[in-house]
Amino acid sequence: MKIDIFNHIFPKTFFDKYIDKGSAGKDIGKRVSNIPTIVDIDARLRVLDEFGDYVQVISLPLPPIETIAGPEKSPQIAAEGNDGLAELVRRHDRFLGFVAALPMNNVDSALEEMRRAIDDLGASGIQLYTNVAGKPLDASEFLPIFDEAARRDVPIWIHPARGADFTDYLSEKKSLYEIWWTFGWPYETSVAMARLVFSGYFDRFPKLKIITHHMGGMIPYFEGRVGYGWDQLGTRTSDADYNALLKSMKKRPVDYFKSFYADTALFGAAAATRCGYDFFGIDRVLYASDMPFEPVPGLYARETIKCVEALDLTADQKDQIYRRNAEKLLKKG
Amino acid sequence: MKIDIFNHIFPKTFFDKYIDKGSAGKDIGKRVSNIPTIVDIDARLRVLDEFGDYVQVISLPLPPIETIAGPEKSPQIAAEGNDGLAELVRRHDRFLGFVAALPMNNVDSALEEMRRAIDDLGASGIQLYTNVAGKPLDASEFLPIFDEAARRDVPIWIHPARGADFTDYLSEKKSLYEIWWTFGWPYETSVAMARLVFSGYFDRFPKLKIITHHMGGMIPYFEGRVGYGWDQLGTRTSDADYNALLKSMKKRPVDYFKSFYADTALFGAAAATRCGYDFFGIDRVLYASDMPFEPVPGLYARETIKCVEALDLTADQKDQIYRRNAEKLLKKG
Repeated sequence: MKIDIFNHIFPKTFFDKYIDKGSAGKDIGKRVSNIPTIVDIDARLRVLDEFGDYVQVISLPLPPIETIAGPEKSPQIAAEGNDGLAELVRRHDRFLGFVAALPMNNVDSALEEMRRAIDDLGASGIQLYTNVAGKPLDASEFLPIFDEAARRDVPIWIHPARGADFTDYLSEKKSLYEIWWTFGWPYETSVAMARLVFSGYFDRFPKLKIITHHMGGMIPYFEGRVGYGWDQLGTRTSDADYNALLKSMKKRPVDYFKSFYADTALFGAAAATRCGYDFFGIDRVLYASDMPFEPVPGLYARETIKCVEALDLTADQKDQIYRRNAEKLLKKG
Repeated sequence: MKIDIFNHIFPKTFFDKYIDKGSAGKDIGKRVSNIPTIVDIDARLRVLDEFGDYVQVISLPLPPIETIAGPEKSPQIAAEGNDGLAELVRRHDRFLGFVAALPMNNVDSALEEMRRAIDDLGASGIQLYTNVAGKPLDASEFLPIFDEAARRDVPIWIHPARGADFTDYLSEKKSLYEIWWTFGWPYETSVAMARLVFSGYFDRFPKLKIITHHMGGMIPYFEGRVGYGWDQLGTRTSDADYNALLKSMKKRPVDYFKSFYADTALFGAAAATRCGYDFFGIDRVLYASDMPFEPVPGLYARETIKCVEALDLTADQKDQIYRRNAEKLLKKG
């Protein structure tokens, strides 16, 4: 069996009410209008039939709830999204579970929605974005979310999102060549990971379970920079005392990055999958396709499976990536 | 023999005059003050003795000439830098050649310095940074540089540099955790490459030879995003017609990125070296160490050689990476 732990779907009522009417921004509207399987369940199930014993843990696509409405309305929107996802899971065996959306611009409500989604709806974890409407994830106001997730052993899926201030570098055009997507997203994932590491989240919450999309952002390919480069943290800086920070850390910076989980959603890049696997190791890599953002329905799942198959692993090790690592995180099976 | 094609050194007189006095900015001053082998030739040669038949093609470290002085003075500073590098090459067999610095804030003088450095001083090529004091490399004012480099078949080394506007994302601190270095540099390299590709430089100059530092930035690890992702260029954008751009291109976007050369300066990341090699191929990967920015003198060369040795290649193929690809670009051997 394969468990696809990071892919996206809009419950129909949620889509009609909050996305299709354009409140989500025209770029997202344009993007999803070309992808029927993001909301059409029958079309989605037909695509999945190709893959045999294959189930998905679904989550909402962009936009983050907190960018749809202010803190008064966002809790209700998150709840509607989670109710819709939970209903899809109840109705269809193909959907093994769902990841709850949270109204992150209202932390008290986000904590309550996390409790409701997990206890009442059976959510497998929570989805956060790499920034909260422009604020970094390690801002103190979001600490209660991590605190509660760690306390309850709730895994956190981290999805990239363009920050409020993130315009394309050296460009007057905000969307120049869609660089914000191709390189900006992995960059933002990497920055979010670094901020959590250097803010001491893994010392504070040693069992924190964070699943990074797209095989851990830039970390594995730049393992040398993260490793030997950050072993020299402070030597390039004159306006902060990073030598003191470095000395206060219990491990080398690079070793903290190995505490993250990473998914295989690299869109068919076999050598990169090997590189990411070598960094995170057999216990931390989980199968995911990022369906349905492929040029042809089913392509990413097909290509990603090829990448896992191309790893030099035993059937048992592959089963760990396809299924058992997910079951452990999801507390299923 | 090994030819290390991307590593850095300050000629002593240049260092004393322009760097040590602090005009280059205190962060760079702090950084280089900890690295004696960046300017002490005897110390550098002692480090190199460990590596046997090993020569270096040297270039100036940061800062870019155009950030040291305005367009009136920068041509003279570049000339002094290049004279110093040429003298090191004349004096020491360990230095096979040098890459010329250009005063990019004065394009007419940069063209003349390029001619002088290559014809009179024997430079192997030119070094550009990923931005010119905040302007992108594909800005029309720099087109004559690429035009002339392509016409004369002069290779271009591209080194990352923090752009004038590049502050650390989501941070009040400009140097937060030195993320600008760890992730910002590869991001900037990737953006510079993308801009050259989408601005049509490889259609305009099919034989353009550009050597990207650190194994091609983010491209190999995110081959799937560059590939299938950018095959969908335009679907995420509502404010520009990228479908038309995509249709005007002669190849898939990802295939243009394979026209770049890439060096092995990944600081000992073996799996990443394999990933980069798989993307760029045997004809486009060149050995480089990025000496002397290692925590212990010689470490990066030692670790990088291990990475090349760990590739599943024949002795002849390894010789191509260590030597022959460089000789071809340098028109030596």
